Amino acid sequence: MLNFVVESKDLDCKARAGYFNTDHGKVETPIFMPVGTQGAVKAVKKDSLENDIKAEIVLSNTYHLYLRPGTKILEKAGGLHKFMNWEKPVLTDSGGYQVFSLSDLRQLKSDGVEFRSHLDGSKHFFTPQKVIEIQRSIGSDIMMVLDECTPFPCDYEYAKNSTNLTSEWAALNKEAFENSKPLYGHSQFLFGIIQGSVYKDLREKSAEQITELDFDSYAIGGLAVGEPAETMYEMVDFTTDFMPENKVRYLMGVGRPENILESIERGIDMFDCVMPTRNARNSYLFTSEGILAMRNSRYKDDFETIDKNCNCYTCRNFSRAYLRHLFIAKEILALELASIHNLHFYLNLIKEARKRIIDGSFLNWKSEIIKKISKERKNNTED
Amino acid sequence: MLNFVVESKDLDCKARAGYFNTDHGKVETPIFMPVGTQGAVKAVKKDSLENDIKAEIVLSNTYHLYLRPGTKILEKAGGLHKFMNWEKPVLTDSGGYQVFSLSDLRQLKSDGVEFRSHLDGSKHFFTPQKVIEIQRSIGSDIMMVLDECTPFPCDYEYAKNSTNLTSEWAALNKEAFENSKPLYGHSQFLFGIIQGSVYKDLREKSAEQITELDFDSYAIGGLAVGEPAETMYEMVDFTTDFMPENKVRYLMGVGRPENILESIERGIDMFDCVMPTRNARNSYLFTSEGILAMRNSRYKDDFETIDKNCNCYTCRNFSRAYLRHLFIAKEILALELASIHNLHFYLNLIKEARKRIIDGSFLNWKSEIIKKISKERKNNTED
Repeated sequence: MLNFVVESKDLDCKARAGYFNTDHGKVETPIFMPVGTQGAVKAVKKDSLENDIKAEIVLSNTYHLYLRPGTKILEKAGGLHKFMNWEKPVLTDSGGYQVFSLSDLRQLKSDGVEFRSHLDGSKHFFTPQKVIEIQRSIGSDIMMVLDECTPFPCDYEYAKNSTNLTSEWAALNKEAFENSKPLYGHSQFLFGIIQGSVYKDLREKSAEQITELDFDSYAIGGLAVGEPAETMYEMVDFTTDFMPENKVRYLMGVGRPENILESIERGIDMFDCVMPTRNARNSYLFTSEGILAMRNSRYKDDFETIDKNCNCYTCRNFSRAYLRHLFIAKEILALELASIHNLHFYLNLIKEARKRIIDGSFLNWKSEIIKKISKERKNNTED
Repeated sequence: MLNFVVESKDLDCKARAGYFNTDHGKVETPIFMPVGTQGAVKAVKKDSLENDIKAEIVLSNTYHLYLRPGTKILEKAGGLHKFMNWEKPVLTDSGGYQVFSLSDLRQLKSDGVEFRSHLDGSKHFFTPQKVIEIQRSIGSDIMMVLDECTPFPCDYEYAKNSTNLTSEWAALNKEAFENSKPLYGHSQFLFGIIQGSVYKDLREKSAEQITELDFDSYAIGGLAVGEPAETMYEMVDFTTDFMPENKVRYLMGVGRPENILESIERGIDMFDCVMPTRNARNSYLFTSEGILAMRNSRYKDDFETIDKNCNCYTCRNFSRAYLRHLFIAKEILALELASIHNLHFYLNLIKEARKRIIDGSFLNWKSEIIKKISKERKNNTED
């Protein structure tokens, strides 16, 4: 069982600071996981992740790794950690979300989901047992159960049936987990996923059914799929009340910096999102004073650093004018420098949130910082 | 005047080991310059260039920098070194080659060349004076004269007239250089360029006319433009005899590893080429035992390093199987890891050549190493 320790709880909200240990190291929560879908955080080298961004855990994806490079190669490599030479913890998404979002011609059946690869159209079948098996081959420290991630909007009947299916599958996931062993000598944990779309009674029921199965910890899935932010916050706030205090709470696929802080307030410990890296590649930079669209001509002779409060590699070395030049000149280097900065921003923000929870100043700090960081600069568009 | 010191000369060929100093540091020759056309070595961060590749000097391009970001921004930045935060020497190509190879609608006139930008079609006019002025704004440690780079094949009459024009322009370049000053407090040197296509009498005449102008050092231009390697070697061997012993000899745009070693034998000290970085981005990796086409399926479960004799960041950390996966999965990281490796290979090879010149074993080593490194692996194509 994953041993999650809550070190400190905020007195005025549900925010908490804690940590858990894996055989690849300790993770302090709240935590943000950079996304390395295909076994690589896009455009970022591992030494940057370790030394600059100070990532404590990265997320990779079962669906993608299963299709490419495939479990045979991962097993021959001795698992994903060795394949990508990453010695810290890895969490793998189960692939449920990807099957439903990326794959054509998917067909949901009671025992799993049939889908065609988005790469070559080949036909595959994921069952709860199968995704456990794949994640054993991957060797992720934290595995996720196969679930159905409902879209938004989603009518009540569909959501209800889907939530029941997710619960049935959860039990099969757990069984497959208990009947199999890690392949590489390090422990693997399994997190359950609570669904229920935007319906409180379904969220409550799902939370009860999933937590009953006694997973190592629990995630909230099916949010950040297009619903309004307020709805997401409401669902998070409601659902965390039904999640055990002594387990990690992971909000999947969230989100913008302000979404993360609002969700920490509502009791969430763990996050992942492609936003910092994807926005970086699209030249959108997060800063302590708002978002910069680096391609905007206002930065062409702006020799300030991206963020004067940041000490990442990019900010230590380069100006906005240079970064803009790299984007305009289509230099690959722009993508790397921007990705390093955005990931550093996310990790730094969540580290600060943790400190604030511990010293009791989280809520005040949160209100202030959200005003600053979510500011879109005037005329801040590409030109 | 650039102070070039020849430390050691090979007794059996024209190879020599030497060094020169700039205000941004010492450069030991023979040397290879990674190409950073637009003020950035493609896909490679400066800390990799410094600490891993150990680049001593990089090349950037007057034509590209003039068009983007432009001299105003470079001047506001305090020159290219500060703009790209590169504290070691920079050489800038004059842009002559790019005007002739990239630009549409160029029109050669006696006093310069009119051309349209390959970016936006805007009309520009480069004269010898203008390219000196631009390179003052850039602040490169070594500036190159404006010349006409003849194509291959090139008929004798055209080559003859072109060589004369290059000589006339060379004098104007020198004059403009002497009548202007560095802008940023560090010294700038000016290299002349010898042309003459593949005609020995033109090469000889060009060498005489250009060296008469007493530049800081000299380059051979107009080679590696499509002529057979043997012709290139013959021209290099012939031309270096007319170049002063006490000046650096720079062979522009060369080349493959074996081209570089053969040219060192024939008296060349300095090289630049996009090949290591461009080939890297196309998944072709240089190794001590031949070239690897990393996308080939033979590497899919090959967990060896790229090159067992290499200690670059990529080889220290990753397997061929992982690098192949990154290429196949179209991860940007592949481009960076491969570029670091190829540049490290080039710099390491030339460092080894320098050592061999000094200890008197250059020629034997060269014959052996060329056999190994230029080997194309069987079935070594993409699949």
